[in-house]
Amino acid sequence: MDAPAKNTKVYEEVVERIKKMIEEGELKIGDKLPTERAMAEELNVSRASIREAIRSLEVIGLIESIQGAGNYIKNDFSEILLEPLSMMFMLQQGSAIDIYELREVLELSTIMLSAERISKEELKKLKELIEKFKESDIESNNVIIDKEFHYTIVKSANNPLITNLLNVLSQVIDKFITDSRKNILESSENKERLLKLHERVYIALENRNSLEAYTALKEHFELIKEYIK
Amino acid sequence: MDAPAKNTKVYEEVVERIKKMIEEGELKIGDKLPTERAMAEELNVSRASIREAIRSLEVIGLIESIQGAGNYIKNDFSEILLEPLSMMFMLQQGSAIDIYELREVLELSTIMLSAERISKEELKKLKELIEKFKESDIESNNVIIDKEFHYTIVKSANNPLITNLLNVLSQVIDKFITDSRKNILESSENKERLLKLHERVYIALENRNSLEAYTALKEHFELIKEYIK
Repeated sequence: MDAPAKNTKVYEEVVERIKKMIEEGELKIGDKLPTERAMAEELNVSRASIREAIRSLEVIGLIESIQGAGNYIKNDFSEILLEPLSMMFMLQQGSAIDIYELREVLELSTIMLSAERISKEELKKLKELIEKFKESDIESNNVIIDKEFHYTIVKSANNPLITNLLNVLSQVIDKFITDSRKNILESSENKERLLKLHERVYIALENRNSLEAYTALKEHFELIKEYIK
Repeated sequence: MDAPAKNTKVYEEVVERIKKMIEEGELKIGDKLPTERAMAEELNVSRASIREAIRSLEVIGLIESIQGAGNYIKNDFSEILLEPLSMMFMLQQGSAIDIYELREVLELSTIMLSAERISKEELKKLKELIEKFKESDIESNNVIIDKEFHYTIVKSANNPLITNLLNVLSQVIDKFITDSRKNILESSENKERLLKLHERVYIALENRNSLEAYTALKEHFELIKEYIK
């Protein structure tokens, strides 16, 4: 009874077929896939194999399966790396330090790109976030403002792959590691230190000074690291 | 006929169950999963749903399904991010520049960690690779030596997540973008320039000089970029 099913690897052919359609531009973001029946007939395989393939692409975050409507290539890939990265993290006895370090390393080099590419609107937004941060006394609000500050900087580097990857890393960190931001922001002295560092980062970006932006952000991370050890 | 099957989202419960077993340490790297029948009975779902779940984790690269032997948590996660990243790249009209930039950015900050952490054995290996590179006149050999040189540096930063991610990025680049290394190494003048840069990188790492290692590697990337534009 537990012998492998006859169609063990058939679903892979289906995955390959879908990938080929993507590669050749037949399927684009938001497009609807052919019906499961049509694909089964075209590839001469069972509907179960088609479904296995669709499911696996759904888990990856590539396809969205809408009840009664069909299967679509997603519009939003913010989740596409989340599952695999989470799994990897959980299985590699993934130390919290490793994943923080990956984010740090990536964010530090990204800010050097941001210094070259940030727009006036984005600079304005950073300034507003600093003001909001100053005025807000509610811890949970500060956490949100802090996140938005970092997100705006990352986005200003204008590389969607990097933005996506850093988002996913933040999600993995939020999911598995106690939120250190909250611990840090509990102390008003730290809030002051963070504020100063945000201001330094802002000025460096405004002056398009990559190295200074890097250095200020690095100090920022050192402060955070005091709280995750 | 094309109405969604009754068990549309049942497989997700199964994926969740497997993830939970991983999270709680019940399943570790290399472990065998319970048989499909046992899981179907435990979760009170069809074997088809179990199979859909297993398939999707296989596509992610988390599970290896061995004919007749059963399903195992993989030992090697080098592929775990490859599929999702490839898909993302293909769909986001992913410009080659974006993906090169992500690799560059990541490798540049990683080398600063390497400068702190590289071992004597790894330094020795780099030196050997430089000698090999000097002596070799065969282009395809030089490409391999060059790759190994970079890989050794990345690995010496001692963060498995970073190593993994950079491997995957290299694979995506090799898969979708013409191999620029080869174009570069076709000219003996470039081989000479690359060699000089490798030597500079090596000396910087030997002296544990992060900033100089960063700067030399950055020049190295500038050279490569002349060939991908």
